[in-house]
This record gives sequence, C-alpha cells and structure tokens, in this order.
Amino acid sequence: MGRDEFAGKRALVTGGLGFIGSNLVRSLAGLGAQVSVIDALIPQHGGDLYNLEGLEDRVHVVVADMRDDAALRHLTRGQDFIFHLAGQVSHGDSMRDPGLDLAVNCTATMKLVEACRAQNPSAILIHTSTRQVYGRPRYLPVDEAHPIDPIDVNGINKLAAEYYHLLYHRVYDLRSTVLRLTNTYGPRQQIKNDRQGVAGVFLHRALRGDTLRLFGTGKQLRDFNYVDDVVDALLLAATTPSCFGRVFNLGSPDRHSLVEFVSVLRDLCGVEYEVVPFPSDRQLIDIGDYYGSFDAFREATGWEPKTNLRDGLRLSVEFFRQHFHHYVA
Amino acid sequence: MGRDEFAGKRALVTGGLGFIGSNLVRSLAGLGAQVSVIDALIPQHGGDLYNLEGLEDRVHVVVADMRDDAALRHLTRGQDFIFHLAGQVSHGDSMRDPGLDLAVNCTATMKLVEACRAQNPSAILIHTSTRQVYGRPRYLPVDEAHPIDPIDVNGINKLAAEYYHLLYHRVYDLRSTVLRLTNTYGPRQQIKNDRQGVAGVFLHRALRGDTLRLFGTGKQLRDFNYVDDVVDALLLAATTPSCFGRVFNLGSPDRHSLVEFVSVLRDLCGVEYEVVPFPSDRQLIDIGDYYGSFDAFREATGWEPKTNLRDGLRLSVEFFRQHFHHYVA
Repeated sequence: MGRDEFAGKRALVTGGLGFIGSNLVRSLAGLGAQVSVIDALIPQHGGDLYNLEGLEDRVHVVVADMRDDAALRHLTRGQDFIFHLAGQVSHGDSMRDPGLDLAVNCTATMKLVEACRAQNPSAILIHTSTRQVYGRPRYLPVDEAHPIDPIDVNGINKLAAEYYHLLYHRVYDLRSTVLRLTNTYGPRQQIKNDRQGVAGVFLHRALRGDTLRLFGTGKQLRDFNYVDDVVDALLLAATTPSCFGRVFNLGSPDRHSLVEFVSVLRDLCGVEYEVVPFPSDRQLIDIGDYYGSFDAFREATGWEPKTNLRDGLRLSVEFFRQHFHHYVA
Repeated sequence: MGRDEFAGKRALVTGGLGFIGSNLVRSLAGLGAQVSVIDALIPQHGGDLYNLEGLEDRVHVVVADMRDDAALRHLTRGQDFIFHLAGQVSHGDSMRDPGLDLAVNCTATMKLVEACRAQNPSAILIHTSTRQVYGRPRYLPVDEAHPIDPIDVNGINKLAAEYYHLLYHRVYDLRSTVLRLTNTYGPRQQIKNDRQGVAGVFLHRALRGDTLRLFGTGKQLRDFNYVDDVVDALLLAATTPSCFGRVFNLGSPDRHSLVEFVSVLRDLCGVEYEVVPFPSDRQLIDIGDYYGSFDAFREATGWEPKTNLRDGLRLSVEFFRQHFHHYVA
C-alpha cells in the first residue's frame, strides 16, 4: 500500500489545471499514473495550462465544464481514482455570484457522483472540501464533530457537495472520502487576485515588494498547509480504504498568527507590513482564530505535514521568483 | 399582532397550487390578503389548479418555474410576505432524479433569496423545510440541536436551502424564518401517488377500499400534523419577528404508530390492514421512530396543533369523498 499503488493506474483530476489540482497531477504523473484532467478554465478561478508545463505529452487535458454530461461521463469511465478539485473557492465571489458558486460546487459535484454511480461505481473518489463549513469556531482546535455553520454561500454549497459524496457512499457503496482543507499555499497558487485566500494575497504583495496589510490585530491564528503536504494527504486518502465514507480535517500542529506569517515573508522578501482596521465587508466573513484537529486523519493514514511555514514559504518564494512573469507580474 | 395583520397585505405563495401551499392561500385570502401564486405545475409534484377552485377571481396565479428570473423578480417585488412552499418533497424522486431535486430545491431557493435581497429586502420570508435533514434520530424527541445527517438527496438539498435563508438573514438582514415540517396530511394532499408520504398512501388506499400495507412492524412512531395546523404555524411565524433568522421544528404532542394511524382509517373507511416485511429499497431510507420537539416554536409563538389524528383524518376523508373523482379515483 502507498504511493506505488498509482503506477500504471488511471486517475482523473477535476480542476487539474488549478493550484492544488496541478500539483497533484504532477505527483501522480511522477508516480507513474495515467492522468486525465478536466478543467473548465473559468476565468479568475486559478486554472492555467501553464501549471502543467512540461507534462503536455504525459497528461490528457480536457478543457470542459463538468456540467457537460457527455464529457464527464466519458472521462469518469475506467478511472481507478478520481480526485475532485474543481470548484469555486472564493468566499467573496460566492456572495457576489451565488448562482455560479452553486453551479460549480453543487451541480458539478452531483453530476460527478451520478456519473460514477452510473458507470464507474468502483472508482475511488477523493473530494476536497473546506474548513469554511464550520463557520466561526465555537472551540479550538476544530474537530470533525464541531457544529456546522457556514457563513457564506461557498460554505453552504461545499457542505452540500460533501453530503452528496457521503450519501452515495452510504446508499450506493461509492468509495468516497471527503477532506476539509484549511489554508493551503505554495507553488502554482493563483496569487494575482485575492480569490485563493490570505496566504496568496500576502505572497503576491511580498513578491512585488509591496507593504503587506493585515486587518484587525494580525493576531488571528491559522493552520497553514504547504501544498505538497496536501497532495500527500490526497494520495494517502485514496489508498486507505478505512477512510471511505468519512470526512476528515487537514491541518497542522503548528499554528501561526497572520503577523508571524507576514514576518517570515518580510525576512524572505525584505518587505514591511502594517496593521489596519477591518474593512466592513471583510468583518462580515472574518472568523477570528481558526485551527483544526487532524487527529482523525493522522490516525487513519499516518499523515502529518512535513513542511514547516518557513520552509514552505521559502520554497514558494523561490518558485514564484523563477516564474515571476507568469504568476506575479 | 396575529391573523388580522394579513388584511390588505400582499403575500406571495410559491408552490401555491400544491398541497400545503393551496391551503395556505385559502387562509390568506380568507384573512383579506392580496395573494399571488407562482407554481411550475411540475407533473407529479402535487400542484393542481383545482386546489384553488372558487378563488380564481381573488388570487393571482402565475404558472412559471421559479428558475425563470424575470417571473421571480416581477413577483417578489412589493410583497409583504413570501411563503416558500415550492419544492420537490419525494425522497424516492430525489434519488431517481437528483438533478431535478437540486434545481427545484436549491437553485430555486437561491434565486428567491437573491431576488429578495436585490429588490425586496424588507419582505418577510417563511421557508418550509423538512425533518428529513436530521436523518435517523439519535435521540427522541428530535429538537433543533439534533445533529444534521440527511439520508437522501432531498434532505441534502433542503438543508442547503435552509442555510441560504439563514445566511441571507445574517448577512443582509432578510427577515427569514425556517420551519421544518414533519408528516403533514389533509385536504388537497396529492394522494394518487406516493410522493407526499406515507399518510397520503394510506389515505388513498383507504378511500379506494383497498387493504392497507404496513412495512416492518408498523410500530414506527410519527408525529402527524393536520394541514390546518401547519397553515396556522406558517401564519404565526410570519407575524412573529422574534422568529426571524431561526429554524424551528413543527410537530405534535401526540405520537402515533403507523398501526394506530391505519387503525383510525380502518374505523373511518371500513378497510383492513396487513403488516409485511420491508422491501429493500424502502429499508434504505427508513428512519425508524421519529418525533420532534416543537417546544422552541411553541415558546416563540404559542403555536400548538389543535387537531388530533382522529379529527384530522375524519376531515380529510370527508374532503376526499366530496372530491373523489378529482383526488382519488
């Protein structure tokens, strides 16, 4: 069991041109899997052909919307593993265009589990969700028994998508596992806009040499995950049958305040930071401190993050400097 | 405060040609409200122009799908009260056609709250949901703090719809209240097919003189609500500002086994009943005993059901006998 299970196997990565998706595709291809990608390249969502640069001959890329039933049915057929990374992740966008968020998060996910039920019920399905389903933490660290209370449209739709996977496991024996991701950062993250979270916003400004701006006190705690650790989690979940039908948090034993996060960037990039009051539109979706417990996932799979914040940010800064004109400028 | 608040006010009832919707429309019209209805008349969902027979000149009926943005915007404008009864309620249908369930329960609800946010943010919105969001009870009676664990597609989509209402209350101050209905029965229920639950199935067979069939032991407990009591709850919720932003169970202080339910029908209609083993497809969605606590709603509004099971079934049987050729034959 483990990473050599992917050699020669067929894997589909939805959203495989995006941030986490493309890093996963690279790992799967490196492990010898035959990888297919479906990605709608919805503008501003982070999908980018450049993310798979150098793999053009080894990965089968289909640019299509998952709501296109024919494409989805064709692509799900015969896959051993399906990693569902496609989706809208921006909390702000979900409030500005709730219908699109519903379409790409709920409707697409339902079509995926339906396609699997109909023609590939033995596929292993890994679904990526978000800590946003918990809303403001009522206790810390947040474990999977924490009450659900989404505070934006994205959290609601992501929650419904989780339930589709779990229901199809329960009723149709689909081998689905749900991972709730927390703040992920790293190479190939879309950082030119604020849609992939606070880590990307800070990285972008630091790389451009701009002063970083923290809202509130900057003391809000977060558990950041470097993208390679998230990819490891996805691969482990897919090769651990005891995970099927369950929901797991990712997370980190290291919690950092936003001030700590930007201080590392200051050291790496030589930029300054300032702390300013919350703008009212951000106050609404601020959740205060957040960090999760990933004990259940560690117990099931042995996973824990290997990359500390300083190393992860150093690797990220190096990557983005090498590809500055594509991701930053 | 109370029922006279509706005189001269404008009220929109979505799904107003359906079972509960049409009974609500009749009450609102009787209280002097100017009532509009939007209903898509989706086949088999229970919508029926006959349900508003005699009110043709007093109620403005628009046959349109709520996903039709233009119709929805037009109809939400200027309403004082909006009661959202439209939706798909059949658990079996939600598993057979999950995409339609998603469309009519999630997408339509999101469009409704969006339309209100955009052009009628002061309307009072009453949303009808279902006990199905709880899944199999972990304790009884089920109160609103009970864990959420939907066991069919309908429960998932109804849950997302609830969250849209609550989120729009929290973020945009929409005056939304969510009621989770339990087994409702009574006049104008669609009983020709099994889509409106076990009460309708039994009523239909009893009215036709057929033997009633109970699955399992017949000892499963339920809390049945007569439709007039549910209409009272909807009206009370709409006129109780302390309810806005909250979720409430309906329910009944009287719990009855399914055997008790059919025994009353046996007395009223002179039919027999039999107890047979569970078919496997029904076993999957059986939730065992269910009864809810409506203490929170009683405390907020003073509501409690006024109609006991024997009286409610007698009134139902009388109604359906009077309109036998339309609803039963």
